[in-house]
Amino acid sequence: MIQFYAPDITTTGILPADESRHCCKVLRHRSDDVICVIDGLGERYQCRIVDPDPRATQVEIISSEAIGRHWHENITLAVAPTKNMDRLEWMTEKAVEIGVDSIVPLLCTHSERKVVKTERLVNIAVSAMKQSLKTTLPTVAPLTPFKSFMAECSRQRIQNPGLQLFMGYCDATYPRKELIREYSPGSDVIILIGPEGDFSPEEVKEAVRVGFVPVTFGPSRLRTETAAITALNAIHFLNEQHDEH
Amino acid sequence: MIQFYAPDITTTGILPADESRHCCKVLRHRSDDVICVIDGLGERYQCRIVDPDPRATQVEIISSEAIGRHWHENITLAVAPTKNMDRLEWMTEKAVEIGVDSIVPLLCTHSERKVVKTERLVNIAVSAMKQSLKTTLPTVAPLTPFKSFMAECSRQRIQNPGLQLFMGYCDATYPRKELIREYSPGSDVIILIGPEGDFSPEEVKEAVRVGFVPVTFGPSRLRTETAAITALNAIHFLNEQHDEH
Repeated sequence: MIQFYAPDITTTGILPADESRHCCKVLRHRSDDVICVIDGLGERYQCRIVDPDPRATQVEIISSEAIGRHWHENITLAVAPTKNMDRLEWMTEKAVEIGVDSIVPLLCTHSERKVVKTERLVNIAVSAMKQSLKTTLPTVAPLTPFKSFMAECSRQRIQNPGLQLFMGYCDATYPRKELIREYSPGSDVIILIGPEGDFSPEEVKEAVRVGFVPVTFGPSRLRTETAAITALNAIHFLNEQHDEH
Repeated sequence: MIQFYAPDITTTGILPADESRHCCKVLRHRSDDVICVIDGLGERYQCRIVDPDPRATQVEIISSEAIGRHWHENITLAVAPTKNMDRLEWMTEKAVEIGVDSIVPLLCTHSERKVVKTERLVNIAVSAMKQSLKTTLPTVAPLTPFKSFMAECSRQRIQNPGLQLFMGYCDATYPRKELIREYSPGSDVIILIGPEGDFSPEEVKEAVRVGFVPVTFGPSRLRTETAAITALNAIHFLNEQHDEH
């Protein structure tokens, strides 16, 4: 099943230019063909093609289905982008496939990457959403300074006392805890992953003060992007195990 | 900590050419520096540099430690390589980081990729082993025809009745089972992941006959390489949860 992404399909009835081209030039759809369109907000529409214009395909919505996400908790992945953009892009694609609500690239003291092409990550998120048959588009924040993000987490914690906060961090100061033992299934969660040079001592103190629990993601030493995906998988597994009981 | 890989360090006392160059030209180690060398078979050696020759660094082993793997079960990942080599390489790197014993690229009926540069995957596995501070190098098989692999799995099952076999496959013929519910922690396991065009009906029948249980890896529709990593994460999580009880 191919999903076309058109966030404003209900108001315009027209596919965006790139989707129109893909629909009518590449896939060669014609009038009366029925295609599947998602709005990124959880709805999936069956649409009949009215005008197969490869620059602005016009459709008529036949039916809609509220699909939403297959998970219930709100999951945020806050990660200091890797120096290598490919790795960050892989991570974004995999995070969306597995299931995430918000991706926040972080600017930390030891960040190797201080510039992020947010639009590129959004495009990757859109593609992954379409390909993995999801209907909700995660938000991708612009590169956010660590302090600002900590303030945001504080605010979220006050509004949502059940929110769980975890940071990938490990040293002798803090008891060694594993995410897979600490996460309470059914809770909203923010996972914080630092740069390759690790968080600074000040950043760790600040995060702990806000309520982040330093955890490992398992016995292996993982790259930034691998840690992100492993942590996401852990959250989903624990929630799926919990749902079955 | 940087690990140098030298499978024959105990017999030759000399680092391979690429490791010698990295050691002495890039990192600029000198005589009497102590470096860490792994043999890929579980041992980690502390070695003193005797001759910092950037083409053939000579070392003296000071001490050794049997590190081995952080998991006990034998884990095989058998995957039909993706058309896109990047994705296969990404998967290999992540699989080694997370922990795998054997990677078997499979040639299936609907395989998009019919040629694999095994040596390239081995190099990626070596790098990932070094970077993730592992000491055991997984085996990477050459591209293996599905039938041959089924025969091999049969043989392994006879020798090892506790061996668990799972294939990523989902259709109305088979009850929908989830890997995370089916895997018995502590068991050796082979995970089979098909090509983007899926297994053929004959391949499914043959695998089921050998004892493979069709499973999904969760609610999401995952790309081949994402399914592989998600499945590996699941196996490790279940084993870690089990170890704690």
